[in-house]
Amino acid sequence: MEIDVLRSAYPDHWNKAAAIRALALDAVAAANSGHTGMPLGMADIATVLFEKHMKFDAANPDWPNRDRFIVSNGHGSMLLYALLYLTGYEDMTLEQVKNFRQLEAITAGHPEYGHAKGIETTSGPLGQGIATSVGFAMAEEHLRAVWGSKIFDHHTYVFAGDGCLMEGVSQEAIALAGHQKLGNLIVFFDDNAITIDGEVSLADSTDQKARFAASGWEVMGCDGHDPVSIDHAITAAKASDRPTLIECKTHIALGSSAQDTAKGHGALTDPEVVQNTKDAYGWGYGPFEIPDELLQEWRDIGRKGAQARAEWQEAYDALSDRKKAEFERTWAGDAPKKLAGTIRALKKQITEEAPKVATRKASEMALEVINPIMPETFGGSADLTGSNNTQTSDLGIFSPENRKGRYMHYGIREHGMCAAMSGLKLHGGLRPYGGTFMCFADYARPSIRLASLMRIPVVYVLTHDSIGLGEDGPTHQPVEHLAMLRATPNLHVFRPCDGVETAEAWELALGRMETPSVLALSRQGLPTLRLEHKQKNLTASGAYVLAEAEGKRQAILMASGSEVSLAMAARDLLQAEGIGTRVVSMPCMDLFAEQDEAYRKRVLPGGAVRVAIEAAGPMGWDRWLSGERGRGQKAGFIGMESFGVSAPAGDAYAHFGITAEAAAEKVKSLL
Amino acid sequence: MEIDVLRSAYPDHWNKAAAIRALALDAVAAANSGHTGMPLGMADIATVLFEKHMKFDAANPDWPNRDRFIVSNGHGSMLLYALLYLTGYEDMTLEQVKNFRQLEAITAGHPEYGHAKGIETTSGPLGQGIATSVGFAMAEEHLRAVWGSKIFDHHTYVFAGDGCLMEGVSQEAIALAGHQKLGNLIVFFDDNAITIDGEVSLADSTDQKARFAASGWEVMGCDGHDPVSIDHAITAAKASDRPTLIECKTHIALGSSAQDTAKGHGALTDPEVVQNTKDAYGWGYGPFEIPDELLQEWRDIGRKGAQARAEWQEAYDALSDRKKAEFERTWAGDAPKKLAGTIRALKKQITEEAPKVATRKASEMALEVINPIMPETFGGSADLTGSNNTQTSDLGIFSPENRKGRYMHYGIREHGMCAAMSGLKLHGGLRPYGGTFMCFADYARPSIRLASLMRIPVVYVLTHDSIGLGEDGPTHQPVEHLAMLRATPNLHVFRPCDGVETAEAWELALGRMETPSVLALSRQGLPTLRLEHKQKNLTASGAYVLAEAEGKRQAILMASGSEVSLAMAARDLLQAEGIGTRVVSMPCMDLFAEQDEAYRKRVLPGGAVRVAIEAAGPMGWDRWLSGERGRGQKAGFIGMESFGVSAPAGDAYAHFGITAEAAAEKVKSLL
Repeated sequence: MEIDVLRSAYPDHWNKAAAIRALALDAVAAANSGHTGMPLGMADIATVLFEKHMKFDAANPDWPNRDRFIVSNGHGSMLLYALLYLTGYEDMTLEQVKNFRQLEAITAGHPEYGHAKGIETTSGPLGQGIATSVGFAMAEEHLRAVWGSKIFDHHTYVFAGDGCLMEGVSQEAIALAGHQKLGNLIVFFDDNAITIDGEVSLADSTDQKARFAASGWEVMGCDGHDPVSIDHAITAAKASDRPTLIECKTHIALGSSAQDTAKGHGALTDPEVVQNTKDAYGWGYGPFEIPDELLQEWRDIGRKGAQARAEWQEAYDALSDRKKAEFERTWAGDAPKKLAGTIRALKKQITEEAPKVATRKASEMALEVINPIMPETFGGSADLTGSNNTQTSDLGIFSPENRKGRYMHYGIREHGMCAAMSGLKLHGGLRPYGGTFMCFADYARPSIRLASLMRIPVVYVLTHDSIGLGEDGPTHQPVEHLAMLRATPNLHVFRPCDGVETAEAWELALGRMETPSVLALSRQGLPTLRLEHKQKNLTASGAYVLAEAEGKRQAILMASGSEVSLAMAARDLLQAEGIGTRVVSMPCMDLFAEQDEAYRKRVLPGGAVRVAIEAAGPMGWDRWLSGERGRGQKAGFIGMESFGVSAPAGDAYAHFGITAEAAAEKVKSLL
Repeated sequence: MEIDVLRSAYPDHWNKAAAIRALALDAVAAANSGHTGMPLGMADIATVLFEKHMKFDAANPDWPNRDRFIVSNGHGSMLLYALLYLTGYEDMTLEQVKNFRQLEAITAGHPEYGHAKGIETTSGPLGQGIATSVGFAMAEEHLRAVWGSKIFDHHTYVFAGDGCLMEGVSQEAIALAGHQKLGNLIVFFDDNAITIDGEVSLADSTDQKARFAASGWEVMGCDGHDPVSIDHAITAAKASDRPTLIECKTHIALGSSAQDTAKGHGALTDPEVVQNTKDAYGWGYGPFEIPDELLQEWRDIGRKGAQARAEWQEAYDALSDRKKAEFERTWAGDAPKKLAGTIRALKKQITEEAPKVATRKASEMALEVINPIMPETFGGSADLTGSNNTQTSDLGIFSPENRKGRYMHYGIREHGMCAAMSGLKLHGGLRPYGGTFMCFADYARPSIRLASLMRIPVVYVLTHDSIGLGEDGPTHQPVEHLAMLRATPNLHVFRPCDGVETAEAWELALGRMETPSVLALSRQGLPTLRLEHKQKNLTASGAYVLAEAEGKRQAILMASGSEVSLAMAARDLLQAEGIGTRVVSMPCMDLFAEQDEAYRKRVLPGGAVRVAIEAAGPMGWDRWLSGERGRGQKAGFIGMESFGVSAPAGDAYAHFGITAEAAAEKVKSLL
């Protein structure tokens, strides 16, 4: 429809939507940067959704049973900021909107989780929002089954653009949502036929409705500017027992001189263009000016969920004290008090039995004692359950028939799994973990990075963490992955050397409130090296002295994971020749870097030659070999400079010279 | 159909297929490792394809116009090795088959490109094969338009499993192939309803035929064990002007006790199981034994393309000498002789004009002189053409209507783009490059890693390489990416500091024969620092002295890319205080590491304090700060330890203290 037709047909709606558009125009112009086109194109859909359907209470933004609103096409962040300001979210002030994209402002270029209430997830890297929303929808289905529909019964609404649907991760998300029949998930596709390079037809001719239908979705269309058409579509979508795609025909940068063009995707900053666009809307107010009456109408929308929230509170208050305590603990993300004791008991048992097991198996042993006392854990694997050892006896399988199930078969979808894990955590009430081969964490890099940026404590169980996996060969053998993961800010990489360190790593990962963790685990069996039971979690300091030098300390061997036992064997060889050798186990470089300098120097004192052993590339070790940014002493590294090889594990280690003998020789060559 | 029915109905076919199955059973049993199920399930399809349709000549495996055969479900590698041995590829001896998955053998756990002729690409990480095949098909379409259908006119056949189709990258590939109407691409979907975790129905309920059809594919089905049904499907697929999906109903691990079960996916090694399976096939021969007559029949299949190849040779010989020389140069992957002179002229021009331009713009300036003299370049971008500056005036757009076009609008599909780039290069005759924002290289990690492993010199143009991109914020600002890419074996990461180094980086990237390159380029304008024209390519040594210390050398500042100008400014501050300061530009750590120790010591002599400056995480710099693995001196780093921030570039740099003043202060604090 033409703008003037819409204006005259739906004046009240039009003005509300125009308020969003005007704020987007003003903020982008003020920042001289940003994306005007999406807010102008999707303002009508957002207005109808928030006015007529979204269940929320701006005064209580943390209400667990609120509907979730996800802007997957995150470059349209001003649409979200405008909605939060207009509906009265306390921290989204007009001042913040005016400071769009400026240092210190909560109104970042793309929505950043944690910057403001109402930002449910960080988005911007395309496809991440829609993939993460699957986790939100799964969490709601699961928690509804666990807590009842008076406590959890809400929808997850997603705005997505062509870019979100072109990214491969969207297919993994669509297939998972369709297979799981997530009827509480509703996606609005901003079908404006435009991308940055030009018309979508330059690069795509996919029938999106047919594509979604092929994975079991309900699909429908609407005129993305006609409030009645939008309202009917949303009403129908809410009635569906399957996830729904609403293909919304829209005009990018509606009403501007750049409407329906690639130019309209970006920042419209020319004052004349901005003014002409406002004129086309019949918007006669100054920059960032919203007339009181209109603002009040929006504020009323922001409070219309208050009644529903009050009723929810009654239902919640009616829960037993035990239930309420459990809810509060899991919602806060706190580990149960008994976790520490449970882990200590497991450590004691392992120390006494000293089994030779792969750390992936030790991880399963830990999960077998953790999952029963943490009903909030939600496990899964990208079709490697038997290899990742991620499933324990009491979880049950999450499916449309068993929403109480706590284990998910994600299929061969590492990226969709990790994005869904973020959604499960962001929703609240759950502690997701998921497994795949470490090499295939590559497929999930964008989601792992976002989790680290969002500061959410999910746990990635990455098994088969080196050439020790053997015959599958270089395509499956990590070499640079430890460096890549360790280089990622706010991501803790644990590479335990035995069952005790594995139990300690799990305790630490589950105790984290703002940091995701990687557990890098071996395929091959490893001896128990922690033979003396310690109540204390030694892994917590990142690195510690596992074996002290006998006699004068001439060498320090440091290693992680499967190579720590090689370091111990090398120590035996060196001590036999009277060369005093300390072995430092370094299960988590990130945590060691966080220790004070005094501790780091106690573990890695000067003087002795240093040799690090890890079946991976050297990047990351130089800092510890050199005594931190220079001031070093003689040092060496035993590891890899190339890709792996297809051969039995023992042959592979020998081929690359990663042996106790080589480590001992390296030390002697440096003395 | 039942096995006995098939055997009696098609005895000749059955025995040929049984030979593949027997070899797979024996090799996996001998290795006590591997995947038996796929070869047993797809042997009939492979037999019909090779006997009746594949255009190839085992005696001339490098024939440019051969059909390409891609095993995307690469865990079924024994199927491929069996086919290569049976059809008579010289290097695939029975000895190699017997050494399946052993050290030094060419028969790796997953197909490794370069190990043997007939292995067209490395596969194993699921979805990579099918995504790479799109590049093969594009290359054939393009080269057919350029050289004529007598020189190029072949198909690309792909075997793919459920895992390949679940991985998101497959959707990017399917959409690209459908949009580009790649009628020469035929995919066989091994529809056996089984994955590692169990039945596909545990994790997926996608209608694959409907999904492919939604992206414009021809779709059909067949009985994957009935040779007549398979033959009819292939014949129909070859007649289609669109890419074709053939959904083949098969039984994984056909005829074994593990048929149609997840157990059948992996290694069947129990001697009794192996024998019973052979008995079910009516295969009465010993391990690795193929009766002479049957082997001869297979060898005849291996030569049936000889006539077609001879005719191709005649057509090729009929080309003009100039054409033949051009074909041989581009097929060999050699850069043209005039490239060096062209780059030198550009360097001279930039040195004289000393423009302040972003290195992404400088990259465009280089491409404007490179593309006209290298008709084999094939460019593209993942919907960021105007930001990556990857399109030059003379390329034309590759499309169904213009197959001669040398520029591809890949859409918002970084992963599909990078996989297709590998296919374009693996096919032969082309030099692909493609662009995206550096942060979104994350989406393509698996394909970038495979290209590095396969040793193919593609070029990734990664712009917006730091917080210098400004307001888009942390989701778009690389921090750990340089470390991640530098840690990847056999990948050269170039981060040029100005237009001259950018031109030198392009010259080096295009001169590579076995190494992919990353060009890390700035969004923001940078001053020209190389103000004295040098014929020599200084970037070739990885790092060099850009500015010598005046007076006694007390400090060495090292930096890359956009921070080199900061190092120069810091040097001015320090020299003003009489502190002799050398500035080392390090555009490629990988190449610097390859220099001999004498050169590295000349560039980074001992004594002086060292400070590195890079708007990224520190990982990777410690090696140079500490004087390589210990033996260091006082050193410091100016950069980032956290994610970025949404703000104007200047504010972001100031916020993180990445300034000339901070670098100068750091030096003084170390003196």
